Amino acid sequence: MDYQVFDTTLRDGGQREGISYSVADKLAVAKLLDEFGVGFIEGGWPGAMPKDTEFFERAKTELDLKNALLVAFGATRKAGVAVEEDKQVKALLDAETPVVCVVAKSDIRHVERALRTTGDENLAMVRDTVRFLKENGRRAFVDCEHFFDGFRYDPAYTASVVLAAFEAGAERVVMCDTNGGMLPSMITKAIEEVVARTGVSADRLGIHCQNDTSCAVANTIAAVEAGVKHFQCTANGYGERPGNADLFATVSNVQLKLGVQVLPDGCLEQATRVSTALAEIANIAPDTHQAYVGAAAFAHKAGLHASAIKVDPLLYNHVDPSVVGNDMRILVTEMAGRASIELKSRELGLDLAGHPDAVSAVTRKVKELEAGGWSFEAADASFELLVRGELPGEGYARPFNLESYRVQVEHREDGAVVSEATVKVRVRGERVIATAEGNGPVNALDEALRVALSQHYPQLKTVELTDYKVRILEGSHGTNAVTRVLLESADGNRDWTTVGVHENIVEASWVALVDALTYGLARTTAAA
Amino acid sequence: MDYQVFDTTLRDGGQREGISYSVADKLAVAKLLDEFGVGFIEGGWPGAMPKDTEFFERAKTELDLKNALLVAFGATRKAGVAVEEDKQVKALLDAETPVVCVVAKSDIRHVERALRTTGDENLAMVRDTVRFLKENGRRAFVDCEHFFDGFRYDPAYTASVVLAAFEAGAERVVMCDTNGGMLPSMITKAIEEVVARTGVSADRLGIHCQNDTSCAVANTIAAVEAGVKHFQCTANGYGERPGNADLFATVSNVQLKLGVQVLPDGCLEQATRVSTALAEIANIAPDTHQAYVGAAAFAHKAGLHASAIKVDPLLYNHVDPSVVGNDMRILVTEMAGRASIELKSRELGLDLAGHPDAVSAVTRKVKELEAGGWSFEAADASFELLVRGELPGEGYARPFNLESYRVQVEHREDGAVVSEATVKVRVRGERVIATAEGNGPVNALDEALRVALSQHYPQLKTVELTDYKVRILEGSHGTNAVTRVLLESADGNRDWTTVGVHENIVEASWVALVDALTYGLARTTAAA
Repeated sequence: MDYQVFDTTLRDGGQREGISYSVADKLAVAKLLDEFGVGFIEGGWPGAMPKDTEFFERAKTELDLKNALLVAFGATRKAGVAVEEDKQVKALLDAETPVVCVVAKSDIRHVERALRTTGDENLAMVRDTVRFLKENGRRAFVDCEHFFDGFRYDPAYTASVVLAAFEAGAERVVMCDTNGGMLPSMITKAIEEVVARTGVSADRLGIHCQNDTSCAVANTIAAVEAGVKHFQCTANGYGERPGNADLFATVSNVQLKLGVQVLPDGCLEQATRVSTALAEIANIAPDTHQAYVGAAAFAHKAGLHASAIKVDPLLYNHVDPSVVGNDMRILVTEMAGRASIELKSRELGLDLAGHPDAVSAVTRKVKELEAGGWSFEAADASFELLVRGELPGEGYARPFNLESYRVQVEHREDGAVVSEATVKVRVRGERVIATAEGNGPVNALDEALRVALSQHYPQLKTVELTDYKVRILEGSHGTNAVTRVLLESADGNRDWTTVGVHENIVEASWVALVDALTYGLARTTAAA
Repeated sequence: MDYQVFDTTLRDGGQREGISYSVADKLAVAKLLDEFGVGFIEGGWPGAMPKDTEFFERAKTELDLKNALLVAFGATRKAGVAVEEDKQVKALLDAETPVVCVVAKSDIRHVERALRTTGDENLAMVRDTVRFLKENGRRAFVDCEHFFDGFRYDPAYTASVVLAAFEAGAERVVMCDTNGGMLPSMITKAIEEVVARTGVSADRLGIHCQNDTSCAVANTIAAVEAGVKHFQCTANGYGERPGNADLFATVSNVQLKLGVQVLPDGCLEQATRVSTALAEIANIAPDTHQAYVGAAAFAHKAGLHASAIKVDPLLYNHVDPSVVGNDMRILVTEMAGRASIELKSRELGLDLAGHPDAVSAVTRKVKELEAGGWSFEAADASFELLVRGELPGEGYARPFNLESYRVQVEHREDGAVVSEATVKVRVRGERVIATAEGNGPVNALDEALRVALSQHYPQLKTVELTDYKVRILEGSHGTNAVTRVLLESADGNRDWTTVGVHENIVEASWVALVDALTYGLARTTAAA
């Protein structure tokens, strides 16, 4: 029996607070999950959610999956309705997926109190629905909702749901920890008891864990160690409440720690890229501290470690970061000593070995700036400008000098909101004044500056601002609140991030903007 | 042998990317951890970090702990140096804590390659340091760094470090998964082997787990189930790379799932409050999806669940949220149906049962606004204003009508950055024009509006803006990028959050500001 990696990012994962996929988003997510090599992609609930119905419709012609099979999710037929007459079940067939996964109640209390029907009728609903799907040529999986709570309360009834599903032809019956209250040892024990009571071998069962005890990944691994060969995850652990078992940590643990290959060759190396891309589509900031795939997953900042890492990196990483497509990073922080500054600079292509004074100056400046709210951890380009400024002959020329700027936002009587900026700068000896409008104050400032520089630096056209992040740093540290802005820029070949900090959000943005253009122009000129 | 809950938020937790505590912050953190009832608070590394030295100095007079003992962290003596001569060890005594925790190398590869000494000298360093601490009246704990990797590579050497520590008088020897690569089953097996090889009973050992496999909490629980009675955690799992075992999830699991009380009575109920306060001090946005204590930990958004929750809330929560000081929340989202809108409104004290048209109108508006980037999940006050607007006779009067505003930010030739705003509004029939400066465009706008309203609404003085969050919503959803602003306000009695969305950050802030003042004035007036 083969292992089945079953992804439900598009169905259960969509229940995470803050996520709302368009149909185009869903198609893009499915494509990325397929690139990661999962075997099954649960795409949504056709019939119940209009977007999901449209997704399955468009998937028929627009989605060309290499590794995965598409799965439609739904419920067993309604109580008291013939399965052939059930509209929701019909919508599952209309989705035309090779696999259908239906959720069934397996806790007698939920059958009686939420579904308001009898245990026997619920069993009939499971049998009828599975049989009907099989008769229509579908592979049928059954998700047993509230499985573990139900099995603890009334093991005989929950076992009867499992047996009803298999008797009707289900391929896998999935044990769902819907409320997420389990620990790994409880999972291990429950699976032993389920196998003993039903006589069903563990490799015909599946597992689906929620993260309410912070153990979803561990619970899934415990089930795999107990012989379960079908596990349901969501990318980045997205899901209701504390979420689901994270696909990337679970698969990495199964392959790298248990030594069981469950993805096609070359796919695990896509983990970091796919995780980040999926966060982007979900419009959720990537969790930098996520296991395996987070930007900080292999980052070292303690002075203690950073100096020892120079000796032997593998003594300080539990796996080689490249096997999941991630990198080791050295962080620039106030806790870091000179060793970290040197390592980080080397990472950026600057050798400080022969410049002890520059190392001292950079270390001192970084400490001062960080005390004022700056952070270079995500702003490599600003850090590089700072280091180059201390290295004789290595500094990038500032492309202009600022005389003054003025930005105005007006909400007019007719309701129109208008932003306008004027900059006065000196460019290569010439004084230039330029004015431009924008859809906000920072955009107007960016536009005006580009107008001012366009004659002298036509190559600026290729530099684009791609992301803008704002963080208000609270006054709870005994200082006044300041605003920290991170700007991401790109020129088609590479992207870079700069930082600006000021109590005024417009000035903080300006500082980051100036670094962004300085860096972009230096790099474009260097490449040309 | 009693259980020991050992917190290292201030030491190991401080290594998390982005955290930088002042001494005042550290004192505040220690006070909160004590309120949560941990037994030990590791405060830092005196002698190595100037802030930590100062923390222990000030703690002597300023910190009055009710439950916890303060712990100084350090390393064993240097190789080739007499322990009495070792400055770092002396600094540990100078901290004058009842307990000292020293880190020791327990992986022979780290001894030889990072420490560059011999296995025998390392054992002598452990023995000498522990004996010296004991002679000076300290309780001594020993953290064995890279314990599990070392034990796998050379079990005899790692065991000899454990025995050396106990022979010299250590109270507990802590097994640290420094690189964080373990799974629960590996922890269980390793502890069995350690006990068999050393003859040391498990209840004299401690556990310290990092989260690199996303299993830190589960690994800690596995150790406790194997008989370990000392566990090291950090609040919210803060720590290097993916972090440490989260204190709140670990303790909640031990008390609520394993049924072992490890905190004094009444302390677990502080979990949510203490977690949030510690995030505030660390200046890290609280993780809304954190197990047990996150704002979304008991939040339900699926239409399926929301309608069933009306029947029996406990069928849908793995524990009663109040035992960890948390609440069940109903989320207002596009996935929610009319049932969620009704439940949410009831939570806010508005009964929609007799107003089916209002429910339809609110549901429709929420869907429209969310499609445009709005989110009411965190903005209860804006949601309440929206619902009241649809209920006959329940709407709050707008305190003013806007004619226009203008905000200007100037960066002058002398480098000064100045913000100024002018608002023109109608208040109770009177046209008012007011101008004010601020430290940024939004602050200037807020100040000008308060000047304009002050005569008619003197009670506005009590309303304060306490937090301001900005999120740029990317254009990747096929729409133009928009800015979403969340404003938190307070008046000394309660706090409330409002939301504004617009492509212009100033206008988005204005919208949230108007809601904030409208809500604040209505509540103040209602209470008066």
